[in-house]
Amino acid sequence: MDAPSGKARVLVDAMGGDFAPQRIVEGAADAAEELGGRADIRLVGDRDAITGELQRLGRPTDRLDILHAAEAVTMGEHGASAVRRKRGSSLALAASAMRRGEADALVSAGNTAAVVSNALLGMGRAPGILRPAIATVLPTSTGHCVMLDAGATADCRPDYLVQFAVMGSVYAEIALHMTAPKIGLLNIGEEPGKGNELSRATHEALSKSGLRFVGNVEGRDVMRGTVDVVVSDGFVGNIVLKFGESMVEMLVGAIRKELKRDPIGKIGAALARPAFRRVFRTLDYVEYGGAPLLGVKGACIICHGSSTPRAVMNAVCVATQFVEKDLNGRIIQRLQEGKTHG
Amino acid sequence: MDAPSGKARVLVDAMGGDFAPQRIVEGAADAAEELGGRADIRLVGDRDAITGELQRLGRPTDRLDILHAAEAVTMGEHGASAVRRKRGSSLALAASAMRRGEADALVSAGNTAAVVSNALLGMGRAPGILRPAIATVLPTSTGHCVMLDAGATADCRPDYLVQFAVMGSVYAEIALHMTAPKIGLLNIGEEPGKGNELSRATHEALSKSGLRFVGNVEGRDVMRGTVDVVVSDGFVGNIVLKFGESMVEMLVGAIRKELKRDPIGKIGAALARPAFRRVFRTLDYVEYGGAPLLGVKGACIICHGSSTPRAVMNAVCVATQFVEKDLNGRIIQRLQEGKTHG
Repeated sequence: MDAPSGKARVLVDAMGGDFAPQRIVEGAADAAEELGGRADIRLVGDRDAITGELQRLGRPTDRLDILHAAEAVTMGEHGASAVRRKRGSSLALAASAMRRGEADALVSAGNTAAVVSNALLGMGRAPGILRPAIATVLPTSTGHCVMLDAGATADCRPDYLVQFAVMGSVYAEIALHMTAPKIGLLNIGEEPGKGNELSRATHEALSKSGLRFVGNVEGRDVMRGTVDVVVSDGFVGNIVLKFGESMVEMLVGAIRKELKRDPIGKIGAALARPAFRRVFRTLDYVEYGGAPLLGVKGACIICHGSSTPRAVMNAVCVATQFVEKDLNGRIIQRLQEGKTHG
Repeated sequence: MDAPSGKARVLVDAMGGDFAPQRIVEGAADAAEELGGRADIRLVGDRDAITGELQRLGRPTDRLDILHAAEAVTMGEHGASAVRRKRGSSLALAASAMRRGEADALVSAGNTAAVVSNALLGMGRAPGILRPAIATVLPTSTGHCVMLDAGATADCRPDYLVQFAVMGSVYAEIALHMTAPKIGLLNIGEEPGKGNELSRATHEALSKSGLRFVGNVEGRDVMRGTVDVVVSDGFVGNIVLKFGESMVEMLVGAIRKELKRDPIGKIGAALARPAFRRVFRTLDYVEYGGAPLLGVKGACIICHGSSTPRAVMNAVCVATQFVEKDLNGRIIQRLQEGKTHG
């Protein structure tokens, strides 16, 4: 995955996301400034739209390469069928470029299912990896934790989850600068015998793995920061994360609505605004630079569909860091060594 | 399940919960006042502790029957082993009384796993029911919804989940006064082909069931009130609910902490307090009177371990209502008819 030039070569899917290409192009341009000479950033998408956007932003049009793509996968499309139908889409072209060794990393805020499908088809799985997993960084009461899989692999076996634990640990070390992160298995009780068939078998496999596995964690332990890496299958992980996100959304909406109902509440809200802003900044996980799809050949970062330019910029920086620190190489090495902490 | 006397006979586990017997006894005494002659309420637990508590509260000691139990299952105990070891526990005695037909309903704020195990051993499954499910009422942006299973059955088959849909619908009709509630399957995508093996097979089974099944709902749709009844296995349901609960806890904690950091924030917080209180009242699901364990012979309501006396009182009222409206009878009838709405 090392860039031959020593520089990370990052492709940015300019057409994926709820506010593409605007926010994506802006974020990529910001990243180019931020990273200076560290990365070669290439926008993939409609050349005219991208150039127009750079001009509108008053940014130089010669700093970022463009790989023209005539099509785009929309947010509402079915991921797998979009892959089959749209071979000329920005995502498909980006994945092909990765396969041909022309780039080291891909950043997309597009349709998650389509990004995963294209990444798997284009890049393929990294050597020794059984199934890929999407890792997400969550704020906790004590700091942060990594949760995976957020939705790449719905049906799992215990050995997939053991690999997820390894991948999540390496990611936590690189992205969150953790040393020997503690691994927990998301389950419905703390005792080893608790859970469903998969979680019982996985508890056993993790216990024997030599990893720094500290046991089961319940749904309520995740946000308390009991462990650093939370492992689950992609079905549970995806539902839990989306549910949590909408819970925060609903709570914030309800607080806003209630504060507006009376004049004193409105004054209170105005005075409390800076405090609220500090809280929501912590919760804003797009700040963390997207969620990496771990286990594919090359770096692939999936951003939230509604990512801000700042979130896109962060994702490009994270992708660059992954290439520079050889995330994949470290994962593969760790799997071969059969242990998770240094 | 009809009480021979026409009155609902409700057992209350006085020893279960983080604040037992205090809050439980108070809640049961309040329920006795609230329900007047509609229910015969019997407290199960240590006679001296219960009587002492009633005296401390200044309540008449002759209004509530007491069924003496020398032991109690603690909150930290392993559910299944506690059942085997503690045959003289308040929970075990309550379940036995149910089996002997001496009571119609059981309310407990104890260790959930122990309540479920005892209820299954004592009461047994209702005729035709494959597996029990715990139903929870959740506040949504548009009102409320019922989510099940919250943790009674971790490993599920599609036919279990179809029965959960029937049980959840009847519960929504009785507890939330809904007509022909819309059923959704908790899944990681909206399209029928999405999800894991279980969810794909369940989608098919629900589609053919004649129930009012409207399709898959994602984690983020639950709180938006897209459907009235959300069906999942007990593994996913338990994790999702506990995660959501801790997410709210963390958010509220973070807001409190930030508001205290500066004097203006403190003033803002003071002014905004009534609005906050209104929001948290909506979110406080213990207000809804606990979560029923559906599919057992008789009514069984599981309360949150930290339930307030008010929550316990509500649970006793809900239990009484279930007996009066013959919840179980209606579920069994609906299963035999093979349809979910009237």
